[in-house]
Amino acid sequence: MIIGICGGTGSGKTTIANKIVESVGAENVNLIEQDSYYRNLADMPLDERRQANFDHPDAVDNDLLINHLKRLIDGYPVEIPRYDFTTHTRLPESDKLSPRTVTIVEGILIFSEPRLLEFLDLKVFVDTPDDIRLVRRIRRDMDERGRTLKQTLEQYEKTIRPMHYEFVEPSKRQADIIIPEGTQIGITIELLCGLIREKLRGEQ
Amino acid sequence: MIIGICGGTGSGKTTIANKIVESVGAENVNLIEQDSYYRNLADMPLDERRQANFDHPDAVDNDLLINHLKRLIDGYPVEIPRYDFTTHTRLPESDKLSPRTVTIVEGILIFSEPRLLEFLDLKVFVDTPDDIRLVRRIRRDMDERGRTLKQTLEQYEKTIRPMHYEFVEPSKRQADIIIPEGTQIGITIELLCGLIREKLRGEQ
Repeated sequence: MIIGICGGTGSGKTTIANKIVESVGAENVNLIEQDSYYRNLADMPLDERRQANFDHPDAVDNDLLINHLKRLIDGYPVEIPRYDFTTHTRLPESDKLSPRTVTIVEGILIFSEPRLLEFLDLKVFVDTPDDIRLVRRIRRDMDERGRTLKQTLEQYEKTIRPMHYEFVEPSKRQADIIIPEGTQIGITIELLCGLIREKLRGEQ
Repeated sequence: MIIGICGGTGSGKTTIANKIVESVGAENVNLIEQDSYYRNLADMPLDERRQANFDHPDAVDNDLLINHLKRLIDGYPVEIPRYDFTTHTRLPESDKLSPRTVTIVEGILIFSEPRLLEFLDLKVFVDTPDDIRLVRRIRRDMDERGRTLKQTLEQYEKTIRPMHYEFVEPSKRQADIIIPEGTQIGITIELLCGLIREKLRGEQ
């Protein structure tokens, strides 16, 4: 079973995915981040790389991601690429992932690629208000990625916001369930874990 | 555990509730419809009753509904009122309901009453486009309730629509999960049943 968790930047989808893995146990479920599949921009001058639009579906190597999902379904291990977000290049190392009963795929653009949708048995969209997402993005870019406030807001206006409204927000229509910014996220985690545990029980 | 399923008229919430009951077994889960708790209008002339606003929270005897939920939680059976939608009166007969591990409460206004929200462990909102809901409402009113198209559309404009936007739609913010008009409702049913089955297993 493959579960897709989609939502805009700062929506909280990674937190939800991690809490699920923590609850059902990392030995029972694979977690794949679409971010690992950003295209290798090594051939591009560094200045240009920084100007690239990382919020457009073309920025992601979906062919490789789809290929990996197919392989996992067929019972083969895959090598998840490691991406360097400072240089925007794919690192030579990768992380081996073995097939498991349940795989979670998370990313802002996983519902925007029709070929990818076909692989998702459950599609969850985390729907968090835009201003809350922006607050989180500013904090993350400044605290964890060493960006200035000016850079962060410029990127937000130039690509993140327009791409969100062109690709991410409309893809909400693909969702089986939508999680609003949560009053009590615990019960939602419990709900998703319940389905996964049923699946795991069925495989035993 | 009490699960609330809310959504506008024609949203499909009753269908979802029934499918859950069917899947986990009627012996394991109670289903309470808020519609059963409409106030008894026997003291009102029949003409006036027909003009009453059945889409306003005050049309529902929430005190009785809350009292019943409390009793069920405390382990006592309750008598669910039977409502006659033709005469808008509460019938002398009622239906006995015994406490069970899981109870589903469904209705258009269950998220609009703060005292009721406190009892709901999981809040599900079925979010179906307005035009699809109207199509279903027209069919139901004409086919099952013997109303004319004129009556149906007048009631829709006069009370159903304004009350929906005043009370039902804003109550979506209370939801833990939102189910959009479904491409594949099966997986959503499976998700909710998974949680219920986990709960039932825990009680054994």
